[in-house]
Amino acid sequence: MPDLRIADVRITPIAFTDPPLLNNAGCHQPFALRSIIEVETEDGVIGLGESYGTKALIDAVVALAPSLRGLPVTDLNGLLARARAQDMGGITGYFGVQALLPRVVSAIEVAMWDALGKALNMRVCDLLGGQVRARVPFSAYLFYKFAGHAGQDADDWGEVLTPEQLVGEAQRLVDSYGFEAIKLKAGILEPEAEIAGLEALRAAFPKAPLRIDPNGGWTVETALKLLPRLTGLVEYLEDPTKGIEGNARVQAATDIPLATNMYVVADEHLPANMAQGAFRVILSDHHYWGGLKASRDLARICEIWGLGLSMHSNSHMGISLAAMTHLAAATPNLTYDCDTHYPWQVDEVIEGGKLKIEGGSLAVPEGPGLGVTLDRAQLARLHRNYLDCGYTRRDDETEMQKHQPGWSFARPRY
Amino acid sequence: MPDLRIADVRITPIAFTDPPLLNNAGCHQPFALRSIIEVETEDGVIGLGESYGTKALIDAVVALAPSLRGLPVTDLNGLLARARAQDMGGITGYFGVQALLPRVVSAIEVAMWDALGKALNMRVCDLLGGQVRARVPFSAYLFYKFAGHAGQDADDWGEVLTPEQLVGEAQRLVDSYGFEAIKLKAGILEPEAEIAGLEALRAAFPKAPLRIDPNGGWTVETALKLLPRLTGLVEYLEDPTKGIEGNARVQAATDIPLATNMYVVADEHLPANMAQGAFRVILSDHHYWGGLKASRDLARICEIWGLGLSMHSNSHMGISLAAMTHLAAATPNLTYDCDTHYPWQVDEVIEGGKLKIEGGSLAVPEGPGLGVTLDRAQLARLHRNYLDCGYTRRDDETEMQKHQPGWSFARPRY
Repeated sequence: MPDLRIADVRITPIAFTDPPLLNNAGCHQPFALRSIIEVETEDGVIGLGESYGTKALIDAVVALAPSLRGLPVTDLNGLLARARAQDMGGITGYFGVQALLPRVVSAIEVAMWDALGKALNMRVCDLLGGQVRARVPFSAYLFYKFAGHAGQDADDWGEVLTPEQLVGEAQRLVDSYGFEAIKLKAGILEPEAEIAGLEALRAAFPKAPLRIDPNGGWTVETALKLLPRLTGLVEYLEDPTKGIEGNARVQAATDIPLATNMYVVADEHLPANMAQGAFRVILSDHHYWGGLKASRDLARICEIWGLGLSMHSNSHMGISLAAMTHLAAATPNLTYDCDTHYPWQVDEVIEGGKLKIEGGSLAVPEGPGLGVTLDRAQLARLHRNYLDCGYTRRDDETEMQKHQPGWSFARPRY
Repeated sequence: MPDLRIADVRITPIAFTDPPLLNNAGCHQPFALRSIIEVETEDGVIGLGESYGTKALIDAVVALAPSLRGLPVTDLNGLLARARAQDMGGITGYFGVQALLPRVVSAIEVAMWDALGKALNMRVCDLLGGQVRARVPFSAYLFYKFAGHAGQDADDWGEVLTPEQLVGEAQRLVDSYGFEAIKLKAGILEPEAEIAGLEALRAAFPKAPLRIDPNGGWTVETALKLLPRLTGLVEYLEDPTKGIEGNARVQAATDIPLATNMYVVADEHLPANMAQGAFRVILSDHHYWGGLKASRDLARICEIWGLGLSMHSNSHMGISLAAMTHLAAATPNLTYDCDTHYPWQVDEVIEGGKLKIEGGSLAVPEGPGLGVTLDRAQLARLHRNYLDCGYTRRDDETEMQKHQPGWSFARPRY
């Protein structure tokens, strides 16, 4: 029996290049932040995790790390208890204390699962209850975007602001990765223009399940007015307006399932969502739900209450993608292809380079644990990026103002 | 890495002696049925489970067993899929098909956890997420009872039908095991007489948390009428009347938490319970909720929705008690002392004889897996009991009629 106790927990912030993708909150910056977590056991087995690169999260993991020494990597209850007992005084930052806790737990928990798998020579999907699918399906994630970052040349995707440009972006993603479902990040242009984009996608990809995500950018009235145009066009409508109550009004008016990754994002939102009948699809995300175990619990709740289930993503590297894939592979009731920003990233921090999405899906990585290992040269390079770029948190609003002076965040916008 | 694939699944029905305990459905028979499940891996590791001894369950496990060969003991998703795919045609018996499935899954699932733990030299409570308490508290489970079985001499507990006899029974249980909480199985005598029993217990044990379980034996009107007598007397009121709707009416009228092991007993009952606000405490039971993993999921749901959580029991041996104890030890939000019939049993099927409840609690058994092993001589003896007694299912009603000719089952009775 290997010694499964934790000897050390390390976190390394990284920054990787990111295109000028648009969303309701602004524009992606030239670098996206992330953090790489290593949980090392007394036997020297290293488990990997990946999470946000926001300073608040990094500070919290660093503060918590000493109290985790000696904890077995199986002891998820112990991790949660120590995280709850940790004084995160002042560490609130981007998320607020309540939302920070499950993020900190998740960052470490995934690395504990990976360490356990590597120590026992077992895959994480087997530790999570058994593989139910060989490959995990992902969707094409379309963004409106500027041609290049402010003051920089155009990138090789070029500008995407019109329906024709959107179809071109989708075609490239479909050709490169074989995606079947297509999702449009919306809440940026006038709603009519975004629906025109969707209709162009429908014409170009007659069989593709389509989705639109205005990120809460529409008023209830706007959403209600647009429902007839969306009916029969999208498989789900994601966060059309703000809050559980507002979305419950929209859901009551349509058979289109409403999906969310914004308003049902923690345990405490579930009872209200079920009571009000707001969202019928949860886009889970192990990075903020508290980890793989908590996400599996969420899947069971969706199954019991008859909700659909898929996965949300932020900009991420291959460790997160491997964790998402193991989790999805062990989740029977995954009802929609998962989201991923992965095709928008060119950097990678794992050995062997980027994982291969083919035919719209990713095979569960082979090998023990998550099936990925760290490329330390790339980790060093991306950590240097982090130090050089000087960011401490994501700030899409300020970035947007470099393109459009005077722009300001508004939700709802339309 | 050991070979974790299942080579064989065996089930052995047993019968053990049981006193003439009374409940709303009648009287316990001289023998209680149970089954012992063995899951053997390709490496020859044997995991143990214990479940109902009803013929329907035994037939279903026997029918399912061949399809489980080759399944890794980690593959809980695979177990569920195979159980769902199994044609249980005609095997309905006591439970009905829908209720049989999670019972069959649980019977095997517990043995899979035990095999995994024994193969990896890890305890089940560690595999379930980590031990949060060294000892698991249990309650004294009081029954009204006849002096002896029909046509037999009095047993050494004697008759328990009056408040004085009830206090005597409680005193013996408290003296022998150190129990703190006391539960009265009710729904048998006139409600006024049972509450007089509770009041006598309160006088004799001023600090003991008390509970009463009429097993759905009261009408809504009776339950409502009795609430003032019960307020301040009991820590929870278990299944006072029938169904979710009826109990919701009672719960709406009182601050006493209503508990259940009768009407929220499967996944599909949870949404209705939450929507109607019927029960505030779930008495979970891994034998019918689908196993240890499903019970842990249930615990999370109780935590998220703010429900209390404890454990129900039927007449059982030490394998079930060990499984309950590991599960409870890994469940942070266990809010009430667990129930167990264990003190009423004298037979045992595990090596070393009966587990020791001391100071009202049981230490998590030491050793890998569940920490218990099978006494094959006792298994053979208790299996012979099973063959000799000729029972194929529990039948409290017919047994009651041997004591009180013409008695018939009624729910509600009062």
